[in-house]
Amino acid sequence: MENKQQESELNMQPHRLEALTDGIFAFAMTLLVLSINLPTPNATADVGAYIVSQFQNFWTFAISFLLLAFFWVNYSQQYHHIKKTDAVTFRLNIFILLFVVLMPFSTSLMNDFTSDRSAELFFNGNFLILCVLLLINWQYCLRKHYIEVTNAKHIAVASRNFLFLLIPPLLALGICFIYPGWSTLSYLLIPILLFFSKK
Amino acid sequence: MENKQQESELNMQPHRLEALTDGIFAFAMTLLVLSINLPTPNATADVGAYIVSQFQNFWTFAISFLLLAFFWVNYSQQYHHIKKTDAVTFRLNIFILLFVVLMPFSTSLMNDFTSDRSAELFFNGNFLILCVLLLINWQYCLRKHYIEVTNAKHIAVASRNFLFLLIPPLLALGICFIYPGWSTLSYLLIPILLFFSKK
Amino acid sequence: MENKQQESELNMQPHRLEALTDGIFAFAMTLLVLSINLPTPNATADVGAYIVSQFQNFWTFAISFLLLAFFWVNYSQQYHHIKKTDAVTFRLNIFILLFVVLMPFSTSLMNDFTSDRSAELFFNGNFLILCVLLLINWQYCLRKHYIEVTNAKHIAVASRNFLFLLIPPLLALGICFIYPGWSTLSYLLIPILLFFSKK
Amino acid sequence: MENKQQESELNMQPHRLEALTDGIFAFAMTLLVLSINLPTPNATADVGAYIVSQFQNFWTFAISFLLLAFFWVNYSQQYHHIKKTDAVTFRLNIFILLFVVLMPFSTSLMNDFTSDRSAELFFNGNFLILCVLLLINWQYCLRKHYIEVTNAKHIAVASRNFLFLLIPPLLALGICFIYPGWSTLSYLLIPILLFFSKK
Repeated sequence: MENKQQESELNMQPHRLEALTDGIFAFAMTLLVLSINLPTPNATADVGAYIVSQFQNFWTFAISFLLLAFFWVNYSQQYHHIKKTDAVTFRLNIFILLFVVLMPFSTSLMNDFTSDRSAELFFNGNFLILCVLLLINWQYCLRKHYIEVTNAKHIAVASRNFLFLLIPPLLALGICFIYPGWSTLSYLLIPILLFFSKK
Repeated sequence: MENKQQESELNMQPHRLEALTDGIFAFAMTLLVLSINLPTPNATADVGAYIVSQFQNFWTFAISFLLLAFFWVNYSQQYHHIKKTDAVTFRLNIFILLFVVLMPFSTSLMNDFTSDRSAELFFNGNFLILCVLLLINWQYCLRKHYIEVTNAKHIAVASRNFLFLLIPPLLALGICFIYPGWSTLSYLLIPILLFFSKK
Repeated sequence: MENKQQESELNMQPHRLEALTDGIFAFAMTLLVLSINLPTPNATADVGAYIVSQFQNFWTFAISFLLLAFFWVNYSQQYHHIKKTDAVTFRLNIFILLFVVLMPFSTSLMNDFTSDRSAELFFNGNFLILCVLLLINWQYCLRKHYIEVTNAKHIAVASRNFLFLLIPPLLALGICFIYPGWSTLSYLLIPILLFFSKK
Repeated sequence: MENKQQESELNMQPHRLEALTDGIFAFAMTLLVLSINLPTPNATADVGAYIVSQFQNFWTFAISFLLLAFFWVNYSQQYHHIKKTDAVTFRLNIFILLFVVLMPFSTSLMNDFTSDRSAELFFNGNFLILCVLLLINWQYCLRKHYIEVTNAKHIAVASRNFLFLLIPPLLALGICFIYPGWSTLSYLLIPILLFFSKK
């Protein structure tokens, strides 16, 4: 019965899911550029001053782009290890893509309402959900033995890293309540975490 | 003469039609995010309250995304079985893509006019046309013996499933007339239909 | 020297140019949906009546989508025959993509200014340039013997067909001057031309 | 330790980074079309005159499209020579994509504020950063011996060409200060540089 489900739902070639995934990531990452507010043609006298004053817009755009790129790398790496998929992983993947697509909205929200607590909660919540879904996908595949364990230590390191991924968005959510407008700084932790993850 | 038509029209590599199809699906699914109405920067005092009040926008966005993902899976599965194509299937595919591309418009319409009967009819009609075109494509390929029948029961199940796909949008169209604003709930039938389709 | 130029400019894998081309076509075809004017939320009482009144928007969107799909098929078919490329064909291809990308603008222009002569001239001119570039690409490759001639009659038919492609946009440009608003009807000639092209 | 980093970060299939890259380029190049300002439906009497008056918009759109296409060719060519990648090249690539995605914003800025010095500085600065990142990537790979040197002269020519790439944007930045509005003309140098680069 489980097999039958796989037959009726998943007899698609994996390269097509990859193509859809890469297309959605490429598109969502490019669409982020629309979140940077353009100056209003007739109401803006000094474009240079406007651009400098909109520094936070460029910062949020860059952080959001880099977070999606970073997430895409982690997501691709999971599928380097995962050798088998089923209807559950397929659905998890669709939900991951749904929240990837929501990122340009979250970024626009944060750029239209700089330093607004609700907007920052929404953005950081969106990224946290992505990281949680990635962890669930990994744990599910581990339990179902869909992961080829050629080196037990590598898998243990990967498991820990996917758990560590939750720290920056959780910290960002916490900062939202105390210093709204500074929460995205917590993502600067990612390069530090990457450094220690190799130990 | 029939062969000649295929030569003059269809001597394209199938991987390119796949690339175009996957690109259009990826793009249309991402473009849906633009249908969520952003709060107006200077007119919105409380972003959090605004987001909660726009719950229906997020619901429609998610339903529309999941419907396109679900449709894409069914569409890919057909081509897992279909071993031959001709000018007719090619044109059907182009029309399927035309109505896929229309989905972000339908979703925007429903999000700009929540609970409006005409907007809901348009959205559900758009998805119904997609399901009808998918069924026509399948029936045409069956009649032309383009489908590799390795297991007659599988093909019969698939045929029934493509027919069952019409139920949720037809039901949604019916609900539009009685309770506009609740029609998308009918798509919650899909997981139930999927469960029974395996019997 | 000619060879050297090819080395310095064209040592790229052809699958990447294909990926860029298919991505740009997929994206331009999907972006067309933004050319359909959405009703203004607070100023529109009857969405149904609005949609019916905007019939021309849907027609232009569909024609533009089908023209790009049709052009993409012809473009892909050329590369089925073309076995060698050089710096000139590469540049022609980039210019073809430039005018493909312009199509969503032309379509928006025609949808914002229905039955406006200048808008229709722009749209039909855009498509005419695409067809002319396609013909130049084909003639250039024929002269440079980049086309594998397995069947001389097939190549003659293809050459004639690429020339016939100019008829619908030229006719549309003519109609613009007499009956602006009706020029896109000339593209209904394409199925008829396709029928005779097989003779 | 360096190897370990590569393992934990880069065990992704190269074809997926290619797919993401080509998707982002295709999308950014198509999104440029949105930078052309559409006439306002009710405020524009003569569409033809408007289009002629917006000549600079079309010029900037075309230049920006051709610059991205030209950059994409150079970028693809580097990877024709580069046989090995590591975490540093991967991060450089992500930053290149970040500034590719920013190009539609820069183009919109220049089209909304024609002949504005700040807008032109931003656009030309954006393209300069891209060219600098490309040069850094190449020099890094040369030093790390990631480049397959089959022909030392070819590599020397390529190195010189990647350096020459900086001339047009640097010249454009200079023109911004003297004749804002004419800076993009410096990109007409590119075909001339291409001609001499073959010597």
